[in-house]
Amino acid sequence: MSLGWKWFIEYQTPHSAHMHGIKGVIYSGRSRMQSIDIVDSCEYGKMLILDGKVQSTTRDEHFYHEALVHPTMIAHPRPERILIIGGGEGGTLREVLRHPTVKRAVMVDIDIEVVKNSKTHMPELSRGAFDDDRAELVVGDGRRFVEGCRSRFDVVIVDVTDPLEGGPAQLLYTKEFYEGIKRILGEDGIVVTQATSVYYSAYCFATIYRTVESALGRAGGYQAWIPAYDSMWGFVYGTKGPDPRVLSENEVDDRLVKRGIRDLKFYEGATHRALFTLSKELKTIIKDAAVATDRNPTFMPI
Amino acid sequence: MSLGWKWFIEYQTPHSAHMHGIKGVIYSGRSRMQSIDIVDSCEYGKMLILDGKVQSTTRDEHFYHEALVHPTMIAHPRPERILIIGGGEGGTLREVLRHPTVKRAVMVDIDIEVVKNSKTHMPELSRGAFDDDRAELVVGDGRRFVEGCRSRFDVVIVDVTDPLEGGPAQLLYTKEFYEGIKRILGEDGIVVTQATSVYYSAYCFATIYRTVESALGRAGGYQAWIPAYDSMWGFVYGTKGPDPRVLSENEVDDRLVKRGIRDLKFYEGATHRALFTLSKELKTIIKDAAVATDRNPTFMPI
Amino acid sequence: MSLGWKWFIEYQTPHSAHMHGIKGVIYSGRSRMQSIDIVDSCEYGKMLILDGKVQSTTRDEHFYHEALVHPTMIAHPRPERILIIGGGEGGTLREVLRHPTVKRAVMVDIDIEVVKNSKTHMPELSRGAFDDDRAELVVGDGRRFVEGCRSRFDVVIVDVTDPLEGGPAQLLYTKEFYEGIKRILGEDGIVVTQATSVYYSAYCFATIYRTVESALGRAGGYQAWIPAYDSMWGFVYGTKGPDPRVLSENEVDDRLVKRGIRDLKFYEGATHRALFTLSKELKTIIKDAAVATDRNPTFMPI
Amino acid sequence: MSLGWKWFIEYQTPHSAHMHGIKGVIYSGRSRMQSIDIVDSCEYGKMLILDGKVQSTTRDEHFYHEALVHPTMIAHPRPERILIIGGGEGGTLREVLRHPTVKRAVMVDIDIEVVKNSKTHMPELSRGAFDDDRAELVVGDGRRFVEGCRSRFDVVIVDVTDPLEGGPAQLLYTKEFYEGIKRILGEDGIVVTQATSVYYSAYCFATIYRTVESALGRAGGYQAWIPAYDSMWGFVYGTKGPDPRVLSENEVDDRLVKRGIRDLKFYEGATHRALFTLSKELKTIIKDAAVATDRNPTFMPI
Repeated sequence: MSLGWKWFIEYQTPHSAHMHGIKGVIYSGRSRMQSIDIVDSCEYGKMLILDGKVQSTTRDEHFYHEALVHPTMIAHPRPERILIIGGGEGGTLREVLRHPTVKRAVMVDIDIEVVKNSKTHMPELSRGAFDDDRAELVVGDGRRFVEGCRSRFDVVIVDVTDPLEGGPAQLLYTKEFYEGIKRILGEDGIVVTQATSVYYSAYCFATIYRTVESALGRAGGYQAWIPAYDSMWGFVYGTKGPDPRVLSENEVDDRLVKRGIRDLKFYEGATHRALFTLSKELKTIIKDAAVATDRNPTFMPI
Repeated sequence: MSLGWKWFIEYQTPHSAHMHGIKGVIYSGRSRMQSIDIVDSCEYGKMLILDGKVQSTTRDEHFYHEALVHPTMIAHPRPERILIIGGGEGGTLREVLRHPTVKRAVMVDIDIEVVKNSKTHMPELSRGAFDDDRAELVVGDGRRFVEGCRSRFDVVIVDVTDPLEGGPAQLLYTKEFYEGIKRILGEDGIVVTQATSVYYSAYCFATIYRTVESALGRAGGYQAWIPAYDSMWGFVYGTKGPDPRVLSENEVDDRLVKRGIRDLKFYEGATHRALFTLSKELKTIIKDAAVATDRNPTFMPI
Repeated sequence: MSLGWKWFIEYQTPHSAHMHGIKGVIYSGRSRMQSIDIVDSCEYGKMLILDGKVQSTTRDEHFYHEALVHPTMIAHPRPERILIIGGGEGGTLREVLRHPTVKRAVMVDIDIEVVKNSKTHMPELSRGAFDDDRAELVVGDGRRFVEGCRSRFDVVIVDVTDPLEGGPAQLLYTKEFYEGIKRILGEDGIVVTQATSVYYSAYCFATIYRTVESALGRAGGYQAWIPAYDSMWGFVYGTKGPDPRVLSENEVDDRLVKRGIRDLKFYEGATHRALFTLSKELKTIIKDAAVATDRNPTFMPI
Repeated sequence: MSLGWKWFIEYQTPHSAHMHGIKGVIYSGRSRMQSIDIVDSCEYGKMLILDGKVQSTTRDEHFYHEALVHPTMIAHPRPERILIIGGGEGGTLREVLRHPTVKRAVMVDIDIEVVKNSKTHMPELSRGAFDDDRAELVVGDGRRFVEGCRSRFDVVIVDVTDPLEGGPAQLLYTKEFYEGIKRILGEDGIVVTQATSVYYSAYCFATIYRTVESALGRAGGYQAWIPAYDSMWGFVYGTKGPDPRVLSENEVDDRLVKRGIRDLKFYEGATHRALFTLSKELKTIIKDAAVATDRNPTFMPI
């Protein structure tokens, strides 16, 4: 029988799960924060799994990282100073550094073990980004970093795990956190965050939308299908300057050319336009969503 | 332990599967063609399953049926005569009949058991469509129907199961079949078919694209995320008249208003525009794809 | 792919489970006490499942019912008055009635729905036992029945679900319950109960052993492998008269002949002898086990 | 949710499987013959898995190894020269060496990788047995070794993987193989082999029984429940001298004492007696079974 017998099963809910056949385990360990597994999967190539949730796979990570990084980076006329909160495996940093305008990219991740093991065992993700002179790695808590930070940034990218109930990332999705972000954004600054599934946790997405909007004043949402997340995935941005949504297909393609960014597998002008089309249902849910605060944070329903 | 214990497991490949917790089985039987199951699932509501593959669920079927039907129906200036090949559970017929221009909608499905049991056990799908005076149900083989057909149709919608190797639907995805379709299309006629996953079976999608194009002359593809299919799903159209792709957001919204079509949950002008954005990778695959013929049919890799 | 896609998954622990392919669901419902499912499984024939735990299958139920009933029934010289606590699907009653000495067999089950649906959908289990003139069905709580009972019985057979934490059967495994049983046992009376897995819940088995011993004075344990329970299964008896353990192979075979009992698939003299051999490990665990009381009941570790 | 998410799933048939939660993978590789995995499982401790089938676990291996080795070793009055065919992880060798009569124990395993990795990663299995002066490891094919062998042995123990259709072990279960074994057995020699599940593959067990009997003249079968094999497991012996079946409980216990064998967890005189009790059903199946030959080998039904 040719059937697989080593499986990683990601439970999305107690009654829905994705079974991933795996060829082997490349790394398995526990850091102070979480369990870290890097496996060689049959369908998705290498997979980084934190606390049992798929974070990135070598087969499809470009969907996520290109969708997270480029819409805001392209919208900003001259993104020089970049802050990444989270982003452990280095794919976000890699995409950020494609933009030749970038002078300094600070990445603040709480778990050095994720960074180290991703570099060692999934170098396809960071592709040398950590060795770029412009990159600076800070190991620490993102919330605390933002609160104590005296620098200013043109683009802030929040690339942390989902806001699970009682989980470590919950306070990175509240109004107080985004007020801190607002303070450290430069004049035309833009912040973007991954924002969970627009379908399975639509209300959570909508709350993040409302939360960023309440802190930044202007916000927007977009979505991209991420195969390994089994869902159309949401992203939320807030801006003190340009609004990524209004860029035309041609403007996006022009800027990509001007910045010499080639070889993207997913993102281009036409894709940019399509990303910002939210479904009718979702727009209704956003209307009624609440704002998450430190006292009343949002979380994914599991 | 609150964990589910009745599961339906849909294997996409021998090494990837979706586990669906089910509350109960509503209907389970075998027709001459296939096994038919209608279950009450924990996350997707009622689910129609044919030969172990999810076809429609009450929670998310609007994504599929609206995406399959409306782009071509809206593109055609006056769709009066409609042919549906397949479409057993009646969701496609239901969406077709929303268009007040329709005078006659013929649905040719090979398996009366699917139609009957869907009507009885999942009436949410057809919502009375089979009782509409304009609807006409033919029980029979779609290929044979097309070959013997003397009528002409404005829009033909192919809503059949995936082209599995050796499966019953394979000859509904070949050049010969689409040449038959071309013959029975009216002057401005358009045909559209579901076209498998644009990601997991991208080459199969691309082949369907090339096949329809080779028979009809002009063709196009679009995609929509279908939650229960665990994938961004492909659709391919071929046209003798208008091209759905060139409609602007406003044109689509105008036509919806003029035809009095309200209450769609997914489709509208903005969505129409976004549907037609294929990824860079996919466009490359389409370039190199072959044409499927009766002798060399295409099939999904399983 | 010939692989099954409808599965019943019995979790023994959160980290160990048996996946049973099922062909179809025969009955699925909820009584006031529990969920009741009767499925047609690929490997075990029809399966009765209560609250997600397999109770009986048509393929292997003889192991369980013969092992539960005959060792004590054969040990008692003239079992005329029998009480069964539980025993819903009727297999225990069926085996009891094989003994021609039996004049009256009272079965007290709390869930009439299990009895009714088993009779209708799994008649292979009871094989008409409920229609035997000697059989008497009482629908009610076993504990209360014993406490209010003024009759005397030669053999009492406790055939109820496992003592799960907080579950309905917990008070049928305590010293107080067995003191009640002792009161209603006739002079040479013997009581026997299923006693969970001797391996996966060895301590629970050992506690039942000690509990019955503390109430009855003399007790013993035996075990039989039950395929569908995925384990060597334990049984515990307490006796005011003969001790089943001391019967020789020939004595058992003689009594079976004298009572005209043929056609058993599992039980005979040699098997009787083998049943009473507990492993060295288990005997050690029994030595140290506690007695379960209403205030400190035992339960299976899940 | 505390549920496991790394699973090893052992399919017994396409419609029945055991899901084992695993904490981590200790070793994973491929030898020339097979895939080798050693995992740390939640319920069974370390597990050795060959080609997806569980071979030994640290929690329950004593059932298997004690049942395989001691009944024949105890039956032989003075087992000095021992041959083990297979036995890769060293548990069989370990049990053999407990008998102080043993002067030389030759183990012939085809896969040095299994031996090496078991020694390194599961030293609990061999517990130094490979370093015993009496032990001799031969890497090679068991069938060929027997055919070319000029030594004589008192006890031969066949501890190889199941006879899967087309699998490498099939020719170690045929009449021709056992004729070779007969030739190399000393005057009072006894051979024993694991013989698959007496329940799920009862006919295969019965064939092995008939096959050994046809080659050796006198044979017998016994069974022990092996938790990690999810079944009552069969063993078949053939003898030119004493018959293990006729030993009494006291004789076994006496010999264990005389040989100074203590600390067994499973095997003792009472257990010995119980092992030899086969079920009524099984005895019927044995009656009708065929003999396996090189041209018509037996195999487990999968």
